[in-house]
Amino acid sequence: MKIVAAKKILKANDQLAADNRARFDQAGVFVVNLVGSPGCGKTTLLEALRRQWGAKVSLAVIEGDIAGSVDAERIEALGVPVVQINTEGACHLDAAMVASAAASLELSAVELLVIENVGNLVCPAGFDLGEHLRMVVLSVAEGHDKPLKYPAIFQGSQAMVISKIDLLEHTDFRAEEATAAFRRLAPEAAVFQVSARCGEGVETLARWLLAARETRSAAAKR
Amino acid sequence: MKIVAAKKILKANDQLAADNRARFDQAGVFVVNLVGSPGCGKTTLLEALRRQWGAKVSLAVIEGDIAGSVDAERIEALGVPVVQINTEGACHLDAAMVASAAASLELSAVELLVIENVGNLVCPAGFDLGEHLRMVVLSVAEGHDKPLKYPAIFQGSQAMVISKIDLLEHTDFRAEEATAAFRRLAPEAAVFQVSARCGEGVETLARWLLAARETRSAAAKR
Repeated sequence: MKIVAAKKILKANDQLAADNRARFDQAGVFVVNLVGSPGCGKTTLLEALRRQWGAKVSLAVIEGDIAGSVDAERIEALGVPVVQINTEGACHLDAAMVASAAASLELSAVELLVIENVGNLVCPAGFDLGEHLRMVVLSVAEGHDKPLKYPAIFQGSQAMVISKIDLLEHTDFRAEEATAAFRRLAPEAAVFQVSARCGEGVETLARWLLAARETRSAAAKR
Repeated sequence: MKIVAAKKILKANDQLAADNRARFDQAGVFVVNLVGSPGCGKTTLLEALRRQWGAKVSLAVIEGDIAGSVDAERIEALGVPVVQINTEGACHLDAAMVASAAASLELSAVELLVIENVGNLVCPAGFDLGEHLRMVVLSVAEGHDKPLKYPAIFQGSQAMVISKIDLLEHTDFRAEEATAAFRRLAPEAAVFQVSARCGEGVETLARWLLAARETRSAAAKR
């Protein structure tokens, strides 16, 4: 009985996610679902990408948090339209929450929408939000064994960002091992090494995301 | 309907957790539920505590992971009895899993049992495992805002370990802010600062855990 109920919830979510994606495509918005552990540096990465893109890219953000609006305030301070979702204890965003948050954004004015999920390497894995790209962030402080221990979230991601590489020399993190473990789960995915703090790798990632947007946009027009 | 079902599951878990605790008390085992984000350093902290206690403390460990047995192998290498639970995708341990794992330990020979939960700052908060003490680990690499953003797991913990303090000078982490935010949620709780890598703070924590065990043991005898 429990399993049936869970499957029904997932099916309903998948339908809502497909509706979201259709709406995003129609408005010409490219959507990224940004996932990773608490404190892996998702918000700081977003701030760095924003600085890199500047006014060239019309960015909007949906912030998912259990409680509070710390991250939304940081994004707002950069002059980026942002909607805060408080999940009130729930461990992941779902497509219904995103639909409701997106309704308060002026989508026709947005080129790139980043949805920052709740910090959690487990639960967001099962919930399509209607994004075009899921990007998982792994901080070097977390250790290179995480793709082995939390396979689902890595398996379904199209890109992995190894973050906080300025801390590399102070940790035992082995980037080759993390990358090899990730590639076994997601052979087609891209891997980036970034220090949002020092700026290293930000430009490459920023360019790649815009190219992914172009590819999607060209495919949608066909 | 969903809420009723969730409440029923929690009630069943609470009953099983109370059964676990009664069994642990009868066997004279003090049990710690170790929680924290993926990569916050739970296993490394356990290794450091084991080195500190040496043969003086009869330790056993239950390792909770979504997949794999990386952590259990590390603990086994220290000569500590260990049982691996693979949750097969589930985002937290529950009391039934712990009951089943504990059944394969010789509890009468164990003084201190540490249950390392799945790396997750959200879902383990709702599930009593039958422990005597919940200890949350927060790495300085994660940022001092985590108690504000993930209040439930901090609120229900009796101790917070600020880990990886050897990285402190390379981060923007403010220990006073993390401690103040934690104390607002858990005014009676203890706070420790530890570098499991360098050994700083390990002795103090190791001593405090043994004292907590004594206090519990004296209360159980009354």
